Amino acid sequence: MRTLRLDLCYDGTRYRGWQRLPDTENTIQGKLENALSRILGEPVEISGSGRTDAGAHALHQIASFSCHSTLPPEEIAAQLNRYLPEDIGIHSCREASGRFHARLNAKRKTYCYRLWVGREKCVFDRKYVYCFPERLDVEAMRRAAQILVGEHDFSAFCARKTKKSTLRRIDEIRIEPVGEELRLTFTGNGFLYNMVRIIVGTLLEVGVGKRRPEDLRTLFGASRAEAGFTAPAQGLWLMEVEY
Amino acid sequence: MRTLRLDLCYDGTRYRGWQRLPDTENTIQGKLENALSRILGEPVEISGSGRTDAGAHALHQIASFSCHSTLPPEEIAAQLNRYLPEDIGIHSCREASGRFHARLNAKRKTYCYRLWVGREKCVFDRKYVYCFPERLDVEAMRRAAQILVGEHDFSAFCARKTKKSTLRRIDEIRIEPVGEELRLTFTGNGFLYNMVRIIVGTLLEVGVGKRRPEDLRTLFGASRAEAGFTAPAQGLWLMEVEY
Repeated sequence: MRTLRLDLCYDGTRYRGWQRLPDTENTIQGKLENALSRILGEPVEISGSGRTDAGAHALHQIASFSCHSTLPPEEIAAQLNRYLPEDIGIHSCREASGRFHARLNAKRKTYCYRLWVGREKCVFDRKYVYCFPERLDVEAMRRAAQILVGEHDFSAFCARKTKKSTLRRIDEIRIEPVGEELRLTFTGNGFLYNMVRIIVGTLLEVGVGKRRPEDLRTLFGASRAEAGFTAPAQGLWLMEVEY
Repeated sequence: MRTLRLDLCYDGTRYRGWQRLPDTENTIQGKLENALSRILGEPVEISGSGRTDAGAHALHQIASFSCHSTLPPEEIAAQLNRYLPEDIGIHSCREASGRFHARLNAKRKTYCYRLWVGREKCVFDRKYVYCFPERLDVEAMRRAAQILVGEHDFSAFCARKTKKSTLRRIDEIRIEPVGEELRLTFTGNGFLYNMVRIIVGTLLEVGVGKRRPEDLRTLFGASRAEAGFTAPAQGLWLMEVEY
């Protein structure tokens, strides 16, 4: 057996998320596993660096898998690109150490949330952004974001009850205008289920004046109901995974 | 009656082109006329600056229409944006002179053709570009393009037999790399049916070495069969109309 690493991207619009589901082929993992199994002539199970939500996108996702096939990695990448649908693209396939595991070895991840704040209708990127036409106090959002940086109990920012630790470390949050968009970029050692989307919803509530930045301090260790709404998946992009 | 001018954009992917057709509502003109007639409570016929092909896009298209309604133009634009599908956007609606006609008064138009020339699969802009992975001699394409600039008989670049004049003036052709794309921008006083797409196909044949730049001189006044293939509509963008 050898271990391979896949770097890929996808437009998540028409998928039910990363994770394979029993009742549909329509997941990224499902599409990849089916294509790989067919190309390599053996059953393949892949591990992604993490699960992306239904409708969320990845500019750079990482996956790993093991196989018996001796097909060269470049050939696997080329065949995958031909075989996969047009909304999934393989950046590269390469040999990895037998100990490499895309999820377990991931050290940091970067997500970007794209808000369309222009006054005009967003026509061409409509499936890649969340349209938020209300006026935003970006400075207040930046102050609120700074409170979230560091290691904290993000229980209030997790959509799923869990007995596991909800301690996570956020290294950086950047909030930058790019054309008609406001882009929120998050780098950290790991993110809970829906964590980025709930942080974005909470920062938007700060932006419209519903919450004060300093009130975010009270959310550490709090329950889900205390934090803001969950921003829609279509604005969420997995940008980078570091090992 | 008053005359209004509409500035708009659209993602042409799922439409059968600009021009209203008797058997389908699925044209840009059809969508606009239906929406306007409903909003204004009277039958409305609009004129576009020109017809765009099925699958072609417009970053900036102009249309004009007359109506009895006294609804303020800003209100018409806002209601249109709410009523129209998400892939058609209204930049603005404004009062125009009673003599204004979007097609008859157009002086110059600019089209852009987006070629994806990157080695990686084009995932996110896949519906907005034409993927052309072969190696291109861009300098040869530029020399060929310069031959086309000026007033010429572009009969070979017209997909439809016509008794009307096929004389047109191209003021400028720019060929520029932008990221993983090669963008071909054409400005001229008017373009024949499929003219930009046939020019792009012909320039691509120069780019891959099938034609020499200087051979394009023989195409003026020639028949359609002498010129190159018709590049697909999905890479074609109407960028600007000047009056």
